[in-house]
Parts: sequence; structure tokens; C-alpha cells
Amino acid sequence: MPIFGPIEYKDAPPEVRAVYDDIMTTRKTDWINNFWKVLAHDPVALKRTWEDIKQIMAPGALDPLTKEMIYVAVSVTNQCHYCIASHTVSAQKKGMTDAMFKELMSVVGMANETNKMSTGYQVEIDEQFKK
Amino acid sequence: MPIFGPIEYKDAPPEVRAVYDDIMTTRKTDWINNFWKVLAHDPVALKRTWEDIKQIMAPGALDPLTKEMIYVAVSVTNQCHYCIASHTVSAQKKGMTDAMFKELMSVVGMANETNKMSTGYQVEIDEQFKK
Amino acid sequence: MPIFGPIEYKDAPPEVRAVYDDIMTTRKTDWINNFWKVLAHDPVALKRTWEDIKQIMAPGALDPLTKEMIYVAVSVTNQCHYCIASHTVSAQKKGMTDAMFKELMSVVGMANETNKMSTGYQVEIDEQFKK
Amino acid sequence: MPIFGPIEYKDAPPEVRAVYDDIMTTRKTDWINNFWKVLAHDPVALKRTWEDIKQIMAPGALDPLTKEMIYVAVSVTNQCHYCIASHTVSAQKKGMTDAMFKELMSVVGMANETNKMSTGYQVEIDEQFKK
Amino acid sequence: MPIFGPIEYKDAPPEVRAVYDDIMTTRKTDWINNFWKVLAHDPVALKRTWEDIKQIMAPGALDPLTKEMIYVAVSVTNQCHYCIASHTVSAQKKGMTDAMFKELMSVVGMANETNKMSTGYQVEIDEQFKK
Amino acid sequence: MPIFGPIEYKDAPPEVRAVYDDIMTTRKTDWINNFWKVLAHDPVALKRTWEDIKQIMAPGALDPLTKEMIYVAVSVTNQCHYCIASHTVSAQKKGMTDAMFKELMSVVGMANETNKMSTGYQVEIDEQFKK
Repeated sequence: MPIFGPIEYKDAPPEVRAVYDDIMTTRKTDWINNFWKVLAHDPVALKRTWEDIKQIMAPGALDPLTKEMIYVAVSVTNQCHYCIASHTVSAQKKGMTDAMFKELMSVVGMANETNKMSTGYQVEIDEQFKK
Repeated sequence: MPIFGPIEYKDAPPEVRAVYDDIMTTRKTDWINNFWKVLAHDPVALKRTWEDIKQIMAPGALDPLTKEMIYVAVSVTNQCHYCIASHTVSAQKKGMTDAMFKELMSVVGMANETNKMSTGYQVEIDEQFKK
Repeated sequence: MPIFGPIEYKDAPPEVRAVYDDIMTTRKTDWINNFWKVLAHDPVALKRTWEDIKQIMAPGALDPLTKEMIYVAVSVTNQCHYCIASHTVSAQKKGMTDAMFKELMSVVGMANETNKMSTGYQVEIDEQFKK
Repeated sequence: MPIFGPIEYKDAPPEVRAVYDDIMTTRKTDWINNFWKVLAHDPVALKRTWEDIKQIMAPGALDPLTKEMIYVAVSVTNQCHYCIASHTVSAQKKGMTDAMFKELMSVVGMANETNKMSTGYQVEIDEQFKK
Repeated sequence: MPIFGPIEYKDAPPEVRAVYDDIMTTRKTDWINNFWKVLAHDPVALKRTWEDIKQIMAPGALDPLTKEMIYVAVSVTNQCHYCIASHTVSAQKKGMTDAMFKELMSVVGMANETNKMSTGYQVEIDEQFKK
Repeated sequence: MPIFGPIEYKDAPPEVRAVYDDIMTTRKTDWINNFWKVLAHDPVALKRTWEDIKQIMAPGALDPLTKEMIYVAVSVTNQCHYCIASHTVSAQKKGMTDAMFKELMSVVGMANETNKMSTGYQVEIDEQFKK
């Protein structure tokens, strides 16, 4: 069987339930999305990945909404359909308005355009940017 | 000659100078970076690209610093060396601290990791994310 | 009609059937997957691509299972859904266990993360790596 | 030693020289670029890759210049510095003018922009495009 | 609601209808594809993106069919399903035959292969390509 | 200053030295490569990233050499120059021969080619690959 199906809470072993519980507590929600339920087939990776995300996405020098929009920007650039769907919703829950989403998309589109043009034109890095 | 060298202000035709002037005025700076000086070989593309960027990067629902960090996030994901160098400096000028840059890098790294894991595991999009 | 449908064995011209036969013989299977049946619209490309894959994926300094997992790693990084589905199954047929697949996904995720972080931080290549 | 240096004609074994000779004859040139001189460390891959390129880049339904510009478009999108440098020169030798190069860059930039915007907005494929 | 649905002509505000009208006139067609109908949620981005595309894809040093095939090449390299579907149809409308499409796919595949091989082998750019 | 320089052992704070020590012990080496010395500007990310890599790259269902070659395959596909240079050397230290490296490159090249061709031809996933 090539595809790992999601593991529901009731079928999960204790170490997986512990992660599910922490996700729900941290995110103040009562459900778990498929990414975690599939990754649960590898409890070690599940725990490592969740703890990394929990640490990285916590409030810090950048606020959670800004971090979530950066996550969307990367997911769009990588054309990851699952991540675009899930992180767009997460960003909305953290306060991203429609107006903010639209500007986000315009910046992502523009950056992708000039990334390629500058490389295609073989532009050399300015001395001012080196130090 | 395969590579277009930068066109300096003094050598630029009037329609290019007009764009250079607008860039310097808008950015409150007295120099032009190589991307524009190379793109100046195509004055129509120069004008179009600058006017797009000027419109997109202006303050709106997202502030200029957030937009600039999103630009960096895309450039890193695309591995565009020129754009990473130039937009990291731009973000710093707009107020990005070292602490913010480090968190930005961690989010970009994490997003790239889970983008691939979710696709590799062939995770299906949750119904909750579809509507 | 923008999309080329799969060409079934019974409808295939002789030069296409010859490739289909070789695929089935080489892979010890009695069916052909869609990639080949679609590429069959271009018999020259079909033959060239199959012969390349046959040569490259044959046992050599690397064993067939290792090669197949490398194929999966590339397909995941490229976010190619078709290739992930097909090469994951191929790897399983060649002996990839669930435990191996999970470790493969963790390595691919990690590599994607540090690839971007090292580029984002503009890390210079160590002299030790150059010679 | 991690990096394979280029193998010069005088140091090359007969099967490598045979490929070098065919490259120079086919391209009407008297030198070999580094890609081939490095790949020469693997004479089987050298021969396979050259014969594939020779077949694919030959005049057909598309003329050689169009093919070369498509090669540049892909190389720019992949941010492959070596390939951008080499195929831009190849395209120029086949007749690409500066005006054509500039339009090529604009199309590549635009396509990269809308590729990401359409995915970011999760646009569904129109029925008209499916059949 | 995470996903923006398409805005139909009858429901569109005047500034969106004006763009829809211009798209239909320019393309000599009587319908609008979903990309534009979704982007219509951001009338400023809709107008900017359409005017950019209209300018860039117009006949110039490169003919419209060549430009459209370059668009397909980029979209395939980026694995953008929507763009592949839409621009393949656009190219067909502008005269791309099946034979041309097949050669296009072979060139795109080959370029993606050698892009990675040259980078993986760490091939240095030839002096001849630098000036 | 846009670029973070490497932090040498003698200048590093205790929590960074602890990671450096663990890297050298684990890898049985007496030096630290630039990636870690630059990431050391963010001791939390340094520790997290190192511990993740240490866990993921340890012997398991896959041996360390196979994991390292997968790392190279991803790095080549992402065109990450730093990572290609560093992980190619790491793989060599773990036993990758020149013959293995060459086959690795051929598989990576081939996978990148067919990834794009299957997407470009819009090949549908076979039912057999879905369950």
C-alpha cells in the first residue's frame, strides 16, 4: 500500500496522542489536520517536526501572523497545494484579511518574476550588498 | 556579447533616467543597484517592472517591512543569490533586525521542509480547508 | 484536444509495442503505466526515454532500490505528484519497507530545509570542500 | 577530490574523443565546453547525453533557435547559472538578437509570476481546458 | 472562506468588466478563464497583470506562438498544473501542432536534466561564455 | 551588515561550543564547516538544526551513505551550491566512490527530466498507484 492514511486519535498510540493533545492545546482547536495524522505513522518524526514548528512559529521578534504569511509565501513558491490550503486558513485564523492576502499574492508573484529576470540577465551582485 | 553590463546614469537615455530618478526619489537613496542598471537595456521592461514594484511594495494592508521579508522568503526559496543579497539589505533598511532575520530564516527553512514532507506522504487536503 | 490520452497496447503501432514489450519484460510485469502510454504519442521520445531509464536504473555501482529511492527524493523535491506515486510503488516493489520510506522522507525534508537556510544565510563554501 | 576537472581532448580516451569529435562536427566549432569535458569522466553518460541532445535539438517541427530559447527559459526558471551562460551564447549563435533575448526574459519573468499567483489563489482548472 | 471563487461578468464591478472586455477583444474570444475571474477579487492586480501580459505577449521580436510555447516551458518546469493546462490550449490556438508540442516537451525534459547534471558536477563556467 | 560571518570556536559562547563539540565528536572530525559557524549567530536554531540532523542522519533502516546520497540528490535538484559541495564530500567520506557519484548524477538528471515530462503531458495517476 503506497499511501499512508490518516491515523485518528482513537486509533493512535500514547506517544502520538501526546503530540495530538499538544497541537490542540497550543492551537486552541479540537481537531488535527491530515498532515499530522499521516506523519503519525512515524511517531519520532511527528514529535520532532511538531516541536520544531511549535518553537519556530511561536511569537518572537516576528509576530505569529507575519510568520504564517511567510509560510504561505514559501508554500506558493514551492507550489505545495496541501500547504497553501492549510497555511492560508491558519493565516486567516491569525488575522489575515482578504486585503492582506491579496497583497501577499502580489508580492509573491513579483518576487518570483524578478528572481528569474535578475538571474536570466546574469546581474552581478553590487559591492554595496556584500558588506 | 552574452552579458548585458550595467548602464550608468550618465550614459542612460532620457526614458531610463526618468525611471532611475523615480527609483532614487521613492527609495530616498542616491544610487541605483545593478538589477535596474542591467534591465535598462530594455527601457520598456524597466519602466513596467519598476512601476509594478512601486505599486506592489507601497504601504497598504501590509507594511513595507513585512512585504520586504516576504520578498526575501521567496528569493531564498528560489535560491536567487542576487535577490537574497539585495532584498536582505532592503529589509534591513526598513527595520529588519538581526533577530527578525534569524526567525525569518527558520520559518523559511521549516516551510520548505514540511512542504516536501506533506507532498512526499501524499497527504490529502482536509475538507475543512476547502471551504 | 489539449491532453494526450493513454495509448493501449492493442491500439499501438509496432514500434510502440516493441517498447511496451521491453518494459514489461525488463520489469517482470504485465502492465504499462500511464507515463509510457501517454509518451507513446511520440514513439521516438518513448524509445529514447525508455532506453535511457533502462540503462540508468540497471544495477551498477548503486543497487536498483537505492536508485529508486533517489528517484523518489528528486520527485518529492520537485513536487511531481505523478512521479511520487509511481516511483514510491516501484521502490516498494524493489524492497523499500515502510521504515525506509519514513527515513527517506525525513532526509528529504531536512535537506530541503538546510538547502534554503544555507543559501539564505549566504554561507560561503569552505576551502576544504573545493579541493 | 570532490570536483571533477575537465578532461582535455589530448588526455581523453578514444570513446570520449569520438563524442568530442561529433560535438565539434555537429556544432561546426573547434572547441568543447566544460559541461562535456567534465561529464567525460563518465563516458557512458557522456555518449547518452550527447546523443539525446543531438536528437532533441535537431531541426524538426521547431527550428533550432526556438529550441535553444526554450532551453534558456528552462535554465532561467531553474536558476542554473552554467546553463544560462552556455545556452544564451548558443542561442545568440543561432540568431537570437538582443531584442529577442529581452522579450524572452520578459516572458519568462511573467510566466513565473502568474504560475505562482494562479497556484496561490488555488484557481481551479476550467472545464474548457480539460478536453 | 479560504478560496476565492470566480467572479462572473454579470456580477463584476465596472473596472473588472473593463478588463474582461479588453481580454475578450484582444484574444478574440467570448469567455474568460478562471485565472482572471479569481484575480478579479483584486481589481488593481487584475488590471496590472493583464496589461503586463498584453504588452509582453504581443507580437514583437518574437512571434506570439513562440512566446506562448516559452510560457508552457516555464509552467512545466514550475509544475504549475493550471498554467500548463491553460497555456497549452493557448499555444494550440496560436498554431502549435502536436508535433511541435512533443518537441517542446522533449526540449523541456532535456534542459531540466542537464541543468541539474551541470550543477551537480559543479561545472565551472567557461571563459568563452563570460564575455 | 547583511552577511553573517562564521563564528570561530574560540569566539563562541558556551552553548555554541557545546554544539560544535558534539558535531566534531559525532562526525569524528576536528573542524566545523561554515554552515554551522554561520548558523551559530542563532544558537537556538543551531542546536535545533544539529539535533534534527543528528537524529535523521543516524544509521537506521537506511545506512548513512544512502542517506548522504539522498541529501546530495535533493541539493542538486534545488541547485544549492553550498550543500552540493559539502554533502558530496560527506558522501565521499562515508564511502561514495566516483562510480557511485556518477550513477547518482545520472539518476538525478533522469528523474528531473521525467518529472517535468509527466507533468507537461498532464499524465493522470494510474489507479494501481492509488491503493
